[in-house]
Amino acid sequence: MWKEAVFHRPEGPYAHPAGPRELRVRLRAKRGDLFSCHLFHGDRYGGEEEGDILRLEKAGSDELFDWFEGVIPSATRRLRYVFYLEGEEGGLWYGEKGFAADRREAGAFQYPYICEGDLYRVPDWAKDGVVYQIFPDRFFNGDEGNDPEGTDPWSAAARPRPDSFYGGDLRGIIEKLPYLEALGVNVLYLTPIFLSPSNHKYDTTDYYRVDPAFGDAETLKELVRLAHQRGIRVLLDAVFNHAGYGFFAFQDVLQRGEDSPYADWFFIEDFPVVTTPRPNYETFANGVWTMPKLNTAHPEVRAYLLDVAEYWTREAEIDGWRLDVANEVDHRFWRAFRDRVKEVNPEALIVGEIWHDAGPWLQGDQFDSVMNYLFRDAVLDFFAAGRIGADRFDALLTRTRMLYPEQAHFAMFNLLGSHDTERFLTTCGGRLERMRLAVLFQMTYPGMPMIYYGDEVGMCGGPDPDCRRPMMWEEERQNRELLAHYRKLIALRKELRPLRRGDFRTWLVDPLRNLYGFVRWDGESCVGVLFNNSPHEHRVEVDLHPFGGAEKLRDAL
Amino acid sequence: MWKEAVFHRPEGPYAHPAGPRELRVRLRAKRGDLFSCHLFHGDRYGGEEEGDILRLEKAGSDELFDWFEGVIPSATRRLRYVFYLEGEEGGLWYGEKGFAADRREAGAFQYPYICEGDLYRVPDWAKDGVVYQIFPDRFFNGDEGNDPEGTDPWSAAARPRPDSFYGGDLRGIIEKLPYLEALGVNVLYLTPIFLSPSNHKYDTTDYYRVDPAFGDAETLKELVRLAHQRGIRVLLDAVFNHAGYGFFAFQDVLQRGEDSPYADWFFIEDFPVVTTPRPNYETFANGVWTMPKLNTAHPEVRAYLLDVAEYWTREAEIDGWRLDVANEVDHRFWRAFRDRVKEVNPEALIVGEIWHDAGPWLQGDQFDSVMNYLFRDAVLDFFAAGRIGADRFDALLTRTRMLYPEQAHFAMFNLLGSHDTERFLTTCGGRLERMRLAVLFQMTYPGMPMIYYGDEVGMCGGPDPDCRRPMMWEEERQNRELLAHYRKLIALRKELRPLRRGDFRTWLVDPLRNLYGFVRWDGESCVGVLFNNSPHEHRVEVDLHPFGGAEKLRDAL
Repeated sequence: MWKEAVFHRPEGPYAHPAGPRELRVRLRAKRGDLFSCHLFHGDRYGGEEEGDILRLEKAGSDELFDWFEGVIPSATRRLRYVFYLEGEEGGLWYGEKGFAADRREAGAFQYPYICEGDLYRVPDWAKDGVVYQIFPDRFFNGDEGNDPEGTDPWSAAARPRPDSFYGGDLRGIIEKLPYLEALGVNVLYLTPIFLSPSNHKYDTTDYYRVDPAFGDAETLKELVRLAHQRGIRVLLDAVFNHAGYGFFAFQDVLQRGEDSPYADWFFIEDFPVVTTPRPNYETFANGVWTMPKLNTAHPEVRAYLLDVAEYWTREAEIDGWRLDVANEVDHRFWRAFRDRVKEVNPEALIVGEIWHDAGPWLQGDQFDSVMNYLFRDAVLDFFAAGRIGADRFDALLTRTRMLYPEQAHFAMFNLLGSHDTERFLTTCGGRLERMRLAVLFQMTYPGMPMIYYGDEVGMCGGPDPDCRRPMMWEEERQNRELLAHYRKLIALRKELRPLRRGDFRTWLVDPLRNLYGFVRWDGESCVGVLFNNSPHEHRVEVDLHPFGGAEKLRDAL
Repeated sequence: MWKEAVFHRPEGPYAHPAGPRELRVRLRAKRGDLFSCHLFHGDRYGGEEEGDILRLEKAGSDELFDWFEGVIPSATRRLRYVFYLEGEEGGLWYGEKGFAADRREAGAFQYPYICEGDLYRVPDWAKDGVVYQIFPDRFFNGDEGNDPEGTDPWSAAARPRPDSFYGGDLRGIIEKLPYLEALGVNVLYLTPIFLSPSNHKYDTTDYYRVDPAFGDAETLKELVRLAHQRGIRVLLDAVFNHAGYGFFAFQDVLQRGEDSPYADWFFIEDFPVVTTPRPNYETFANGVWTMPKLNTAHPEVRAYLLDVAEYWTREAEIDGWRLDVANEVDHRFWRAFRDRVKEVNPEALIVGEIWHDAGPWLQGDQFDSVMNYLFRDAVLDFFAAGRIGADRFDALLTRTRMLYPEQAHFAMFNLLGSHDTERFLTTCGGRLERMRLAVLFQMTYPGMPMIYYGDEVGMCGGPDPDCRRPMMWEEERQNRELLAHYRKLIALRKELRPLRRGDFRTWLVDPLRNLYGFVRWDGESCVGVLFNNSPHEHRVEVDLHPFGGAEKLRDAL
């Protein structure tokens, strides 16, 4: 047995409550090394020999590892457990003290108590969510009366500059709700809408004011109300890592320097504050002077921003927040944020923008999920670029699933692209068959599919600002076939419960012929999905074992 | 290279801020497999090829693994890093995406931002602490006027029953402050002192009242004041996992049943509440009916207990809390607890009672440290029972150090025993030479040595209640030689800064002859400690390399 490859710790992704009285346990081992993995578990105050046995199932693999997984019940909520691992040379116990031939010597891992206060609760509706991301200036111009000065004419052929305006607004979104409903999406995520001089509005001037170019608080409320009537939820973008240059507190510091009561709201290196040759204050990214970083550890800043979050959650009755640059803000702040937002709306969803391993934020105390860029990386490499085979693709997906507690997965924002990336179809080199396959994958994988506005009608675009072209509304320019594909798959996801709520297992990995497949089942029915990621036709024999004794198999597509 | 053995995640013990602008990074590999481990690190918004290189040092090993460790500076606080590992077959990059021959392919781990609000700050004084644990009923009877009815005569020869009283009290502790000062300890940890019917007082009747058998609030304040005058700090025991049967809220539930406003303060299965044949409510451990478990997720319970913590921290000016059954209370509660206590006294120390892996509580947001029972397990096996060799001993110590962020280690309560265990000398079978060696180890290892009252004068005792005999004050019965040994070693620890604040490296591991040694250095001087854990005399040649070009070596003992 390759002992060095075995990993478990009684916390995080490897041990987390699946409910008030059950614990999900995972163990990692060298790929192919273990014949079986059993878990002996009991009450931690019970006798050493008391307890039950559960055989853990192989949940997935990557190039190096297998992961075993199972859920153990606990009437008392206090758990002690030890693994029994079987390999070629026999069995070994594995516990807190390591490996041993004798169970007692191995010691027992402890999950001392499943505390109600620490449960990882994600709004149930997220499991059924299909998200549509809107960049308001570029979606639809519903009110030409509020267009900013110098607004360019709307054209899907336009090539936006970093400072272009196109006049899109909240009224435009309201007018297009029927379109969105027909598409089948049920969650809108709007990039920032509060007062700001830019088109993207990630440099907030006033967190309490909807930008007049987009409408006002009443328009926002109307949008949310009308969206709700159609069963569509609305998330806003919380830009709390940094403010805008025009933010009142920063302006005060500019004017009063060290004497400003807001001097500590930011990270100022010296006074007076200057922006050239480089800003002498911390900013978002590399010296973006329009975005001074906020000191979220400062009690006043914290209180201010939490008030903002509470205000809009309550006032506009929104359904949650996407958090900008979420991993550069302190955990302490996000914990308080979760408390405040969920107090107002326990069903609110909180989704962080994190491009990398988001483990520390997905423990139940901070975010419900994140924008799943790791998912995008894998899908892009496999379907769009054809850079990796089915084996590597499966490995990347498995690793991402095993990074986080189970709860997070069903609420992930599974995206193919966003306002911060090249558009997916462009990455595909315009090859629609690749995009179609990727969308099929996105719509059948665990987690919320997130559609970046316009992707569904075949919009192209390179990196920012080119990925932010005005929405292509002219039907004759839209790719209606792709749109139909989206509609059909969203409808299928709604029809087939396992695609939304079912467990996931890899079904077919064939790197030679470039085939991939998985099954999803929810206890009642089972859906298998097969992908031919090659330009050739292939006959494939699949194992129907996952479908058990099913009497009826049908082709859902 | 054994890729499967390599482990790193950019969080917790493997990556944590060592200060506002530096990150401690650890990597685990198969023992002996890596020749070297380098870290390439830079600003996460910088160019991929920009950055610096740090060679990580081997911080320790166990039977299976080596751990490499280093601290990298970050002017911008935003980090990206990738490892370069060299083994027999050459080098490999290791990053977020796994192993690769090409640096870019491996991806980079991200530590997005070292947030001020998340820094793991432990009071600096803890590094110099030597703790003395007092079980007040058994330490000294300073006021016979407040002895409980049926108090037994004080005698170190007494064999306490579970319900014995001996009349020890706060006045007794005050009277013995000169003794404690002469011993050299500078932190007292008192087991509970609030109103309760038992001798141990872990079943609290009134959190706001010092038990009259121990004194009153004034006596407590006097004790703290007089202790402070001698440079001795005082910690109390926070018993917040459960209350006592007599606690007003539980009494109300007993009387009013479901209608009690406190019905949800506990975990009641059904009404009326009964204690026989088994309690129909959750309790501490297995049906201990005198200790109903508190529902710390309930906002009122939380507020009540936090008020208690704040009250005594402020009112009695204590220096911190030891938390009873800490790992069965929710993280959310402890985070709020830390905030409240540190707000009143930023220098307060918070130490959890956790007998196993305490990782989830030692992230900087909850506890400063824990009662280090994993340390005790190792010391007991090596010195007292002689059950393991020097190699296994070193492995256990290393593993425990690598479980937690560095900050926690210097504040650990390194104990040989407590009111919950057999006394150490008893475990040694009375063999003083074993105890002496263990105490030398305890007094020279990183973390706060914690002395259980009476251990220093050679008290024996089996498991609870036998380990709680009245303190042996008769000098003719005390082991004065052992006491002198304690005094000398405590003085040595005070004299030699590296023993309190220095880094730690294993120096000698000789399982054959049963020899062990380590060095500690603080940048200025270096202390080496050698243990002959065998009954035989041995000549040993040690590597003086850790002492660098030292001109002077002296025998500190």
